[in-house]
Amino acid sequence: MMKGVILSLNPDVRIVDLCHEIRPQGIRQAAFLLTASRPYFPDGVIHTVVVDPGVGSARRALGVRSEGSYFVGPDNGVLSWIPAEGSDIVEIRREDLFRKPVSSTFHGRDVFAPVAAHLSLGHPFSELGPAVEGIVQLPPPRLDIDGNTVFGEVLHVDRFGNLVTSVPEAILRGVDSSRVRVDAGSLRLVGIETTYSDRDHGQFVVYVGSAGYLEIARVGGNAGEETGSPVGGTIEVHLPPSE
Amino acid sequence: MMKGVILSLNPDVRIVDLCHEIRPQGIRQAAFLLTASRPYFPDGVIHTVVVDPGVGSARRALGVRSEGSYFVGPDNGVLSWIPAEGSDIVEIRREDLFRKPVSSTFHGRDVFAPVAAHLSLGHPFSELGPAVEGIVQLPPPRLDIDGNTVFGEVLHVDRFGNLVTSVPEAILRGVDSSRVRVDAGSLRLVGIETTYSDRDHGQFVVYVGSAGYLEIARVGGNAGEETGSPVGGTIEVHLPPSE
Amino acid sequence: MMKGVILSLNPDVRIVDLCHEIRPQGIRQAAFLLTASRPYFPDGVIHTVVVDPGVGSARRALGVRSEGSYFVGPDNGVLSWIPAEGSDIVEIRREDLFRKPVSSTFHGRDVFAPVAAHLSLGHPFSELGPAVEGIVQLPPPRLDIDGNTVFGEVLHVDRFGNLVTSVPEAILRGVDSSRVRVDAGSLRLVGIETTYSDRDHGQFVVYVGSAGYLEIARVGGNAGEETGSPVGGTIEVHLPPSE
Repeated sequence: MMKGVILSLNPDVRIVDLCHEIRPQGIRQAAFLLTASRPYFPDGVIHTVVVDPGVGSARRALGVRSEGSYFVGPDNGVLSWIPAEGSDIVEIRREDLFRKPVSSTFHGRDVFAPVAAHLSLGHPFSELGPAVEGIVQLPPPRLDIDGNTVFGEVLHVDRFGNLVTSVPEAILRGVDSSRVRVDAGSLRLVGIETTYSDRDHGQFVVYVGSAGYLEIARVGGNAGEETGSPVGGTIEVHLPPSE
Repeated sequence: MMKGVILSLNPDVRIVDLCHEIRPQGIRQAAFLLTASRPYFPDGVIHTVVVDPGVGSARRALGVRSEGSYFVGPDNGVLSWIPAEGSDIVEIRREDLFRKPVSSTFHGRDVFAPVAAHLSLGHPFSELGPAVEGIVQLPPPRLDIDGNTVFGEVLHVDRFGNLVTSVPEAILRGVDSSRVRVDAGSLRLVGIETTYSDRDHGQFVVYVGSAGYLEIARVGGNAGEETGSPVGGTIEVHLPPSE
Repeated sequence: MMKGVILSLNPDVRIVDLCHEIRPQGIRQAAFLLTASRPYFPDGVIHTVVVDPGVGSARRALGVRSEGSYFVGPDNGVLSWIPAEGSDIVEIRREDLFRKPVSSTFHGRDVFAPVAAHLSLGHPFSELGPAVEGIVQLPPPRLDIDGNTVFGEVLHVDRFGNLVTSVPEAILRGVDSSRVRVDAGSLRLVGIETTYSDRDHGQFVVYVGSAGYLEIARVGGNAGEETGSPVGGTIEVHLPPSE
């Protein structure tokens, strides 16, 4: 329906589906995927985000401008990891751009989609509404360092069951990666591999994923299902002591 | 494959996927989604519908024209809720437009897709075939009123597990919605909320969904899985007595 | 992300998603779907294939040209059923076309997507890299004939649970199809039907599917789940003795 609304206003726009696999209420997961995907899209792209279409009217609608890209979505935290400030964060108040009547439960269709379509037609971002402060902020991805131990979290479980963590590749700099131990739930894994295929079938493997963060997978299996590690679960990375 | 066939005939057409989550044999569910989505698409759109690709040769292929939109699909009832009559319902007989050989089991690819592509290129609707009567009719969405009780059905369970019913918002007009009781399976729910977020985590909530019908959700949960309410299940709405 | 990379290079290209339901490690399943879908796409199409994005750096990247179409993907066997030889199979070595830095785990985004985009812009296929021999070959789809018994395999289980086998329609030529017996796991099915709808609800049915191969379905059910027949499982077709 959102695509119908967008194409009704701008038949020439290109639409790409980024992800339809965010778990319900997965606002952190959506925020992460948005952040991780941004660098791969062209300048001027307009990202339109909905999580939980059943939740509606009480929230503000936000427009965010960041590094040449635009974001339209709810003030529920999903846009809070996008670097932007000042006049680059606005509350969308232009009801004349909305689809009427505005449903109390599907702002994606009636607010975000038509506003994104108008932006794609050249409507000025600054005229969407006033700059706002105090938008809902998600706590940033966990990354706590205590001596040689790094604490992170599982930000995303992909469709293969691979656990994408908040621990960035940089933590491994200058470290003997074969001696790093990673704990997640009941797993105790030693050594960071270059790719998934560096371990045998059935084994768990830790590697630097395509987003630049540590990931945990099970070769030929589904690490998410088999460990029960949920999005939000804790991961500990134990670095070897310096010599 | 259908998209390949369409783009082979008309490389410039825009293709939007409406829904790939209809359950097998979910003809009523597909009919509902088609009806609910139509208003959001531009004039001239051509809706191409397949449910159950394994079912094939015995059915007629239909073209339907309604309020500036076109529909191409099987005569299995899925198009029977589209308002149309007379010369606006035709049996597609133009075998010269089909992809050959026509598979006995995938008319979507060999019949509906190429016919839709030809329509998008300007082929006249009226030349697809003769007007037909007596197409397969689905019973309309249930809406029976007995005194202060309204009987409806679950028409769709979305990917969040929300139950979309056949009871329209209009039934609440002039009623104290906080005193309405909704029964579905073993659920007894009192009060209609404005949005999903008006109840606490774990609670069931009834609200008017984006399609204009009552919906039942569980906050932070999956009402469909947790109640076992299937598509087609009965819902009762008990209105408070007039005063 | 792959679409973002492609559209960043060629904003005018048309992108179609062929399938996102290949099971993890389903290289044979992907090879089959690619082969079965090819005839329905227009000349000049560029197929970009990724299976198992976690597997990375050790594999070569291949370009294949076949009958007017192009294929870009990993040397893991997924392209080995595409008919091509000699200068039509190249190892992609043009690092200047890649997205930098090249992740060790997501060649789809950093290698295959940008190379496909450059091909769509007219970059010559022959300049992607040198012709190669000895690419990873999958064993061909099983088709063994022993007297009146034909042995095949389940190549694909679709989202309806229908089992798509490697036994082609041609095997039935001149045979009384009502006397053919098909064994799959614990199933013993007699007779090949024209369509899925030729059997009653709850019954299993064998028919020639849209790809031209025998398929096994359960009317109103899910044959894959109910028989536990996995991709790769054996199917036996017992032809009636000649008279």
